[in-house]
Amino acid sequence: MPVNKQIHLDNRPEGEATASNFKLVTAETPALADNQVLVRHHFLSLDPYMRGRMNDSKSYAASQPVGHVFQGGTVGEVVESKNAKYKVGDKVVGFGGWQEYSVVDASQPGSLKKVDTTHVPLSHYLGAVGMPGVTAWYGLVKIIAPKEGDTVVITAASGAVGSAFGALAKARGCRVVGIAGGPDKCKYVTDELGFDACIDYRQHPDVRSMSAALKEACPKGIDGYFENVGGYIFDAVLLRCNAFARIALCGMIAGYDGAPLPLANPSLILINRLKIEGFIVSEHMEVWPEALAELGALVGSGKLRPRETIAQGIEAAPEAFLGLLKGKNFGKQLVKLI
Amino acid sequence: MPVNKQIHLDNRPEGEATASNFKLVTAETPALADNQVLVRHHFLSLDPYMRGRMNDSKSYAASQPVGHVFQGGTVGEVVESKNAKYKVGDKVVGFGGWQEYSVVDASQPGSLKKVDTTHVPLSHYLGAVGMPGVTAWYGLVKIIAPKEGDTVVITAASGAVGSAFGALAKARGCRVVGIAGGPDKCKYVTDELGFDACIDYRQHPDVRSMSAALKEACPKGIDGYFENVGGYIFDAVLLRCNAFARIALCGMIAGYDGAPLPLANPSLILINRLKIEGFIVSEHMEVWPEALAELGALVGSGKLRPRETIAQGIEAAPEAFLGLLKGKNFGKQLVKLI
Repeated sequence: MPVNKQIHLDNRPEGEATASNFKLVTAETPALADNQVLVRHHFLSLDPYMRGRMNDSKSYAASQPVGHVFQGGTVGEVVESKNAKYKVGDKVVGFGGWQEYSVVDASQPGSLKKVDTTHVPLSHYLGAVGMPGVTAWYGLVKIIAPKEGDTVVITAASGAVGSAFGALAKARGCRVVGIAGGPDKCKYVTDELGFDACIDYRQHPDVRSMSAALKEACPKGIDGYFENVGGYIFDAVLLRCNAFARIALCGMIAGYDGAPLPLANPSLILINRLKIEGFIVSEHMEVWPEALAELGALVGSGKLRPRETIAQGIEAAPEAFLGLLKGKNFGKQLVKLI
Repeated sequence: MPVNKQIHLDNRPEGEATASNFKLVTAETPALADNQVLVRHHFLSLDPYMRGRMNDSKSYAASQPVGHVFQGGTVGEVVESKNAKYKVGDKVVGFGGWQEYSVVDASQPGSLKKVDTTHVPLSHYLGAVGMPGVTAWYGLVKIIAPKEGDTVVITAASGAVGSAFGALAKARGCRVVGIAGGPDKCKYVTDELGFDACIDYRQHPDVRSMSAALKEACPKGIDGYFENVGGYIFDAVLLRCNAFARIALCGMIAGYDGAPLPLANPSLILINRLKIEGFIVSEHMEVWPEALAELGALVGSGKLRPRETIAQGIEAAPEAFLGLLKGKNFGKQLVKLI
């Protein structure tokens, strides 16, 4: 059996997460039982939600257990199979975690899904045509529910969720405004992802300045907002929301480390009769087929060309993840294992 | 024509509202034009939302103009009519403002409504069977949308909105927990209004203590919350919300004066996938008939017996209003003019 390098969560962070929270472990892959398949991972997905799971506190997802393989989405290839529905060579998406191989009981519903790589590169099933894409779709379609001509705003616009959000919102006739860090990302967001405008938050490091930038970028105000950062940007957006604006809340990276970030003026929720809804896309599996069909078509037709940042080798996963939390990635952050 | 004593907004408050913001003015009532009626007010309604309208800042309602009659709901009797649909002696509810008489163009839709005082005392059309009652109904039925057995919580439980909310929620099989100030109000909320429990916020003046009290009063967590106070109570409730809890937000008294009150930990909205929705009941006129029918039946059958605090004479309106903002009233605050 192949040797299987793994990254475990070794201990929980106190404050900021660091590389010392992780540990490289070498394991053997066990012999397969009936219905199991052995998947060789081609790519690991790195996602902001994983930071929340490193804490022991009450969170939307169960905590990542200490001393076990760090959990996360994976794409790969079946290299051995004792399940009649999967044969060697099948490309699959699953939740194999930070390791080179996983053994999966493929008879369990939802454990593994075969994917078609004719028009969509395998790695995109972890991004635009995977969980981040469906996250964007759910927030936009089910919570913001924009009308043509609405102005919608998203933070982390150059990332996996942001890029899908932009394409989906443009397809619905919205004015789409992104927020991202640095001129390169902003240029990418407007020139390649097709957003109408992008605000560099590094140029607008406080509520007043960000609020002014939003006013300029959103001359008709904000009708929908996809919140995944938190902190002063959320405060600034609330100041620019139109009456009856809808806010989809899915991830507050800025608050994962250390103390919670307050919301400065919640009375704006009343003043503008806002609707704010938190969601986790894994709790809405019923929308995945519809969302993935639209996202796959956008990628297949070239209307959505998401960028990827790829780290090489399992050993690189912790540092790449810590960089993601600091916004060092450009587009979807992956780890390539082959 | 009768002399008409009025209270005007004389100047806007800086920080806390005071009696010096108001001014007593004596006016003549003009001769009626076609379609107009002259209403003698029996009761003025005093409501927390009026504080927000005293400010010049952007708010959900247009600002109260300085130098004009202070606006608000009224019930009274037609004493003169040039409108075929109204005759002298009709009891009516309207928006006549803080004055003894109002001249109303009754041909304008929504300007005046005849009411039946057979089973419902006239004053209740400003409370349980009026705007506050419909406010409770909308927040409970349209936003919280409780299932039987859900636990729902409301602040200012002894007030006009709170008492209606309690009766409506009990009728839907909920566990209803109130929050009120002082042992007398709490006893009234449980013993007379039929709430399952009531927490005295004066005994729990910080987040930690309030959160512990909520844990005890809501052993199964909180599924729905009607927010009309803001500040640390909102923070404490968020700590006790179950996944997918719904929060109706209508009024944040604690923040009307001076600086906005922050929300300590908005990431709880994501962690528990909450839905928070701000609303103003006057924007949902389509629900009023259904809501008023249910509220009228609850009052008529004696299941909802709201208490009233009644100030006497137009001159008493400003002080009674300032007392309301400090929670000095017990139930619906009115001013009686006859």
